[in-house]
Amino acid sequence: MIQYSPITEEIRSRIVHELGGDCIVDDADAKKVYDRDASELRFSPELVVRVQDSDQVSRLLKLANQYRFPVIPRGGGSGLAGGCLPVLGGVVLSLERMNRILSVDTANLVAEVQAGAITQTLRDAIQKKSLFFPPDPAGMDQSTIGGNAATNAGGPSCVKYGTTKDYVLGLEAVLPNGRPIRTGTRTRKGVVGYDLTHLLIGSEGTLGVITGLTLKLIPLPRAVAGTSALFTSLPSAMQAVTEVLSKGHLPSAIEFLDAKCLALVGDLLPFDVPGQTSALLIIEVDGAPQQVDNEINVIQQICHEIGAAHLLPASDPEQRRQIWEVRRQVSLRIHDNSALYISEDVAVPIAHISALVADLPKFEKQYGFKIYAFGHAGDGNIHLNITSQTRNHLDRVEKGVAAILSRVIQLDGTISGEHGIGEAKKKYLPMELSAESIRLQKEIKKVFDPNMILNPGKIFP
Amino acid sequence: MIQYSPITEEIRSRIVHELGGDCIVDDADAKKVYDRDASELRFSPELVVRVQDSDQVSRLLKLANQYRFPVIPRGGGSGLAGGCLPVLGGVVLSLERMNRILSVDTANLVAEVQAGAITQTLRDAIQKKSLFFPPDPAGMDQSTIGGNAATNAGGPSCVKYGTTKDYVLGLEAVLPNGRPIRTGTRTRKGVVGYDLTHLLIGSEGTLGVITGLTLKLIPLPRAVAGTSALFTSLPSAMQAVTEVLSKGHLPSAIEFLDAKCLALVGDLLPFDVPGQTSALLIIEVDGAPQQVDNEINVIQQICHEIGAAHLLPASDPEQRRQIWEVRRQVSLRIHDNSALYISEDVAVPIAHISALVADLPKFEKQYGFKIYAFGHAGDGNIHLNITSQTRNHLDRVEKGVAAILSRVIQLDGTISGEHGIGEAKKKYLPMELSAESIRLQKEIKKVFDPNMILNPGKIFP
Repeated sequence: MIQYSPITEEIRSRIVHELGGDCIVDDADAKKVYDRDASELRFSPELVVRVQDSDQVSRLLKLANQYRFPVIPRGGGSGLAGGCLPVLGGVVLSLERMNRILSVDTANLVAEVQAGAITQTLRDAIQKKSLFFPPDPAGMDQSTIGGNAATNAGGPSCVKYGTTKDYVLGLEAVLPNGRPIRTGTRTRKGVVGYDLTHLLIGSEGTLGVITGLTLKLIPLPRAVAGTSALFTSLPSAMQAVTEVLSKGHLPSAIEFLDAKCLALVGDLLPFDVPGQTSALLIIEVDGAPQQVDNEINVIQQICHEIGAAHLLPASDPEQRRQIWEVRRQVSLRIHDNSALYISEDVAVPIAHISALVADLPKFEKQYGFKIYAFGHAGDGNIHLNITSQTRNHLDRVEKGVAAILSRVIQLDGTISGEHGIGEAKKKYLPMELSAESIRLQKEIKKVFDPNMILNPGKIFP
Repeated sequence: MIQYSPITEEIRSRIVHELGGDCIVDDADAKKVYDRDASELRFSPELVVRVQDSDQVSRLLKLANQYRFPVIPRGGGSGLAGGCLPVLGGVVLSLERMNRILSVDTANLVAEVQAGAITQTLRDAIQKKSLFFPPDPAGMDQSTIGGNAATNAGGPSCVKYGTTKDYVLGLEAVLPNGRPIRTGTRTRKGVVGYDLTHLLIGSEGTLGVITGLTLKLIPLPRAVAGTSALFTSLPSAMQAVTEVLSKGHLPSAIEFLDAKCLALVGDLLPFDVPGQTSALLIIEVDGAPQQVDNEINVIQQICHEIGAAHLLPASDPEQRRQIWEVRRQVSLRIHDNSALYISEDVAVPIAHISALVADLPKFEKQYGFKIYAFGHAGDGNIHLNITSQTRNHLDRVEKGVAAILSRVIQLDGTISGEHGIGEAKKKYLPMELSAESIRLQKEIKKVFDPNMILNPGKIFP
């Protein structure tokens, strides 16, 4: 176990001297937000530093190596795995002030942004230029592009467009030793040396501090059409998903909500949900105006043939907004209705979703919790929201979580589709990765960060 | 400099003992193909071993560590950078017998293949199931999926669909220490630990021997439509490319041939090429039947407005085949017509293609060679085929190549868009990567391969 130095007065004044005093967040209220992300975990930083350029990041990391204190990079704080929390103390390094969109190159379909730019802000800015940055994590009005890259965030659009890693051409980062590095290219293709870009993406701030990104943009789809389909059984809903995809359609979203979620938020939907409904599918397609209307009709026909009880086309923006708002409200309502709330974001091959969901009642009974399931049916990424009305019996709950994750692995799935490991899931890592894989990854970490000062204690158990 | 052991009789008999004698390629004629790839480089292996399973790969690598001899993994041998050649001697490890398509899962849109499966064979097999594996490197009737992953190969479809890395969900590989590893997931999403999948992809067989791949497939586009547009100036052709992309179209191919290439292969085209033609664009779109015809009309209109002299729609498969055959014949004819032939595959942001191509006559004059330019205009990946009628003055040619690559970097480009570094381009690596980046990559190599037995002498100068 590495011994880290506490942030002494000496260290603090060295930081002030090297970075300037206005970087330090001293106000107790202002500091408070840095002890949390969107998970239930809480760890208080010894010091919070908000940098304005990558040179300050370099200086801070050099001091960290000299004095051996942890530095924990932080974007918008919307993560769900505790990845940006100072679990071993130290300095939280916020990138929030490095939030500039440096350029949007319409001829080359490329944007250069600072890491702290808010994802939604970028999406809005480029939309005006008819360009599109597809990754759409649920927290995108709070999350930063740098944080999205650090966690390889994704959202509903993944089924068609992939995740953040698919839209990052190159990175500017500061290595744990304080030296800046530029990875990747400013072109769509490039095979020069090892793919450090993708190694940094998803490394949850443990291999380097991402300070800038070169993003690949695509033309903004000119139209979107959607439908909501209610099914009386979850397997038939999932059969519809498989059928739609294997018949050659590539929707820009295929979301589902199970019966428990519908019971919780059904009142917000712009249509009635009959009592016998077991699943709601929200399907959208994007592309050329005429094409999307035709395609959504064909998709509705597929759903109908498989037995959708109700089909509600939603092509006008207000209806679509309402439906997505419901999708977003689910987590909040689950949270508000439960004393204990654990959000797992497993993914399984889509043909195995039904098998997994069918097993949930068994786990609920055995371990005494209630599971709300919703998520991205199109890519098999299912949010299992494990809840209880009591915080007693935590041991039993944890055993239940492990049992569910074990079933997920058995179904060729992964324990985290999009939230990452961070602090929250590191104890489960050996369920998915072999000892050899973990050994190799820890050695890679050592190459980048021999003194283990950058976001220590994360990912690896 | 590491001292490697020659392949002694003892080593040979240990290999025979551990792997079985029928792995060894002894016939001199059969062995001959292993001294080359599609570049002009030649290096003779001391021994050629064709394995049938990953266990044999493990055994060979363990012996390599014990005796310190180089092992060089090889797929189809269609590379253009010498990546699979035994530049420091040793054993060439051919994966060609591990060529099975293990499963094609139509419900999950996933295929499991052995690394030695031929790319075209996979594409044909899944096409029957209305599925599509987009990466289309020129040598795909010879290249293997494993080799494509090792070099992150791409082709014309990259502009819409990306490269091999975008279709690999997970890998089975044998590490240089002989231990097997499984990376990635069998799902479309996954963020569990570092992205070893992408680290191995494009590492040109220096970090592990890829033995199996889990591939992401997509629905087969139901229709393709194309057009050939002739322009009297190359900048106007490139303006058409930019205009098409920034107006929201995403063609499945945007290829170009310059005037010199047209002079060489114009006779093969199914239409006349007027004398004043400076560039040919080949544009294709894929998707739903009606949509592609509409879209190609709009694209033709854009080309017309920018000044395309001739526009030749090619929607029937035979016309399309002819045009692509011409595109493929270019390299062969250039090769046959030149005593010296160096193929560079630089990429620049698409808006900079014109600037680069405009500079070529200056380089030709100064360094005394002739450059044929063609390639993937849609992603800025330009093949500069540098030729001469003499093999004298090689020094001068090399200086010219370096000057061109330097200009490419100045234009925010990369020295290799798709061929990789291998042996051929390693001396140019420091033009693009910083000393810190190279240091880091060499340390990663050491973590994977402390004895430097796997494909040594590649990538890094």
